[in-house]
Amino acid sequence: MLMIPGPTPVPEQVLLAMAKHPMGHRSGEFSALMAEVTEKLKWLHQTQNDVLILAASGTGAMEAGIINFLRRGDRVLVGNNGKFGERWGKLARTYGLAVQEITAEWGQPLHPEDFKAALEADIDKQIKAVIVTHSETSTGVLNDLETINRHVKAHGDALIIVDAVTSLGACSVPVDEWGLDVVASGSQKGYMIPPGLAFVSVSEKAWSAYATADLPRFYLDLGPYRKDGAKHTTPFTPPVNLFFALQAALTMMQAEGLGAIFERHDRQRRATRAAITALNLPLFGGDAWASPAITAVMPDQVDAEQVRSVMKKRFDIALAGGQDHLKGKIFRIGHLGFVCDRDILTAIAALEATLQHLGYGPYTPGAGVSAAGQILLA
Amino acid sequence: MLMIPGPTPVPEQVLLAMAKHPMGHRSGEFSALMAEVTEKLKWLHQTQNDVLILAASGTGAMEAGIINFLRRGDRVLVGNNGKFGERWGKLARTYGLAVQEITAEWGQPLHPEDFKAALEADIDKQIKAVIVTHSETSTGVLNDLETINRHVKAHGDALIIVDAVTSLGACSVPVDEWGLDVVASGSQKGYMIPPGLAFVSVSEKAWSAYATADLPRFYLDLGPYRKDGAKHTTPFTPPVNLFFALQAALTMMQAEGLGAIFERHDRQRRATRAAITALNLPLFGGDAWASPAITAVMPDQVDAEQVRSVMKKRFDIALAGGQDHLKGKIFRIGHLGFVCDRDILTAIAALEATLQHLGYGPYTPGAGVSAAGQILLA
Repeated sequence: MLMIPGPTPVPEQVLLAMAKHPMGHRSGEFSALMAEVTEKLKWLHQTQNDVLILAASGTGAMEAGIINFLRRGDRVLVGNNGKFGERWGKLARTYGLAVQEITAEWGQPLHPEDFKAALEADIDKQIKAVIVTHSETSTGVLNDLETINRHVKAHGDALIIVDAVTSLGACSVPVDEWGLDVVASGSQKGYMIPPGLAFVSVSEKAWSAYATADLPRFYLDLGPYRKDGAKHTTPFTPPVNLFFALQAALTMMQAEGLGAIFERHDRQRRATRAAITALNLPLFGGDAWASPAITAVMPDQVDAEQVRSVMKKRFDIALAGGQDHLKGKIFRIGHLGFVCDRDILTAIAALEATLQHLGYGPYTPGAGVSAAGQILLA
Repeated sequence: MLMIPGPTPVPEQVLLAMAKHPMGHRSGEFSALMAEVTEKLKWLHQTQNDVLILAASGTGAMEAGIINFLRRGDRVLVGNNGKFGERWGKLARTYGLAVQEITAEWGQPLHPEDFKAALEADIDKQIKAVIVTHSETSTGVLNDLETINRHVKAHGDALIIVDAVTSLGACSVPVDEWGLDVVASGSQKGYMIPPGLAFVSVSEKAWSAYATADLPRFYLDLGPYRKDGAKHTTPFTPPVNLFFALQAALTMMQAEGLGAIFERHDRQRRATRAAITALNLPLFGGDAWASPAITAVMPDQVDAEQVRSVMKKRFDIALAGGQDHLKGKIFRIGHLGFVCDRDILTAIAALEATLQHLGYGPYTPGAGVSAAGQILLA
């Protein structure tokens, strides 16, 4: 039972779709499939922009989202309040971009005011892009993309490039309404399919920047994906079985509806956090900026790794650990994608039993399930 | 029924393995799986070198194989006798490499003597790598890698970088015996699994070049794949379900044995070519350099696209067409990966019926099946 922020649980009908025999990718059948999933991806992204499909992890999509639209030496403003924000800074430096970081402590959100100040100070419009991780998977923090993006729009020149890997499909990312230029995501998250596909949506403004971008790229060059995508085909052999899975998953998502999907994630986030609080376990990060995908817990009277170990060995529930300096200090409960209310109760009940087994004192047995149940059944 | 050079047919047990629920990739189970498939990949590559696994198409693996080991401005010798050879030239130029091409007409093999001359003329050792497509999928030509590589070894300095996408698993590519520095391949070929994984084997000599290589890369930077691979993990989320498929397919391949696999491909190549000749259809490319993966046919008294269309519509057999200037002029029969002798007879029988239906005159009904059968049952 996967309660990690990816790979997330995969529905049976998606697994079975993936087990179909592959088809040739230079065929009418594949083009029909590609046309269908592309339309459905636009629905999920709430956009009329191109949404391109890569065979890569989410990092491949982010790299494509950065290197296709910038020139060597360009100044970029990178939000960094966790492992993924840190990664985009590294990536941008690798390509010779001049990185200006806006930082916040891990577990804290990025402050939109810091972006405002940096962008307002940029009178001669040297900042060509602002790169933001929407849901910071390493800490469970949801950054305030809407406000940060408003400051980017006030700047007028810079592109907004978004890592929506664990936010897309969990909460609303209205690409057209907000005018998000580049949005990257990956299949093993809100999409409910196994890893191996990544997605990038690209605005007209970003395509204008593409025309003069000069960073070297080939496999991740989005131009051919756009050109071939217009004919419902791909520049390189696509992972056709993952396309079958994508088709099945997006069909399920459309049946549930965007509003219902977001409401479910919000409900499960609130239920999880209420249960953790009721168990007297310290949440890592405040409610006001809590990701709908993942809840991080920093226990002080029980060992985080012991909790994970018992949950895994005795109940076959995989929780995520901390990364880098948070290793061993936090555990993270994923509630992203194909997760039902029963799964939340299951995880909390198993956590209670685990805490009891580990001799954790300061809680009332049943308090977690009770708190979660009240919210789930409200 | 796929008789194209990829995606190739996938065995049922591989499809079912892929339909298993994904596991977390930061787990002991995944590390055990990765250790197992890595050992099996070394077996297939006949090497003790690192064999790294990427979430990408074969082109991603080739790009990684080039950009990790060279410096901007480096001179590279690129063999070009088809669409893929042409692609590596484009890719190398994209990264600012000085490309010197050795060309041959499409349908003809690269001449090892041309490599010898260019390498011998390079007295001051400016050529840093020689890039060769082993089996040129666009034309069905198997280049003489063994001899070309001998000339590279005589040069002493240059790396040999090989596109083995449609040769690995079809004929012997003895990486250690020949001393091949970089060998790239893709899952939807001889591996018998769907597209989405790519592989790169890397020699110690290539790793030495890596230490001073300066082309920008992040997702395709092989250093982290090596470092994490040593701990049986991956720098980015791996496509775990394709790993399940890989494990199942490599287990099948080991049960069959390398010698038997190569003999089967050779037998099916000879049977297919004998049948085509018996049907008075002109083969595109000579027997001496015929790929074990694919047979190209250039019919002169029947339309290639009509043959493909009837085969597809009436018998549900997918053949490949020609690419670029060969579009409409040739058709290509794939016999790579999970192909049994019955499949060859099936394709030839369907081709005979198709030729008859299209009013193709110059052949004796049954001649193709008879010629193929004699070789298959020899």
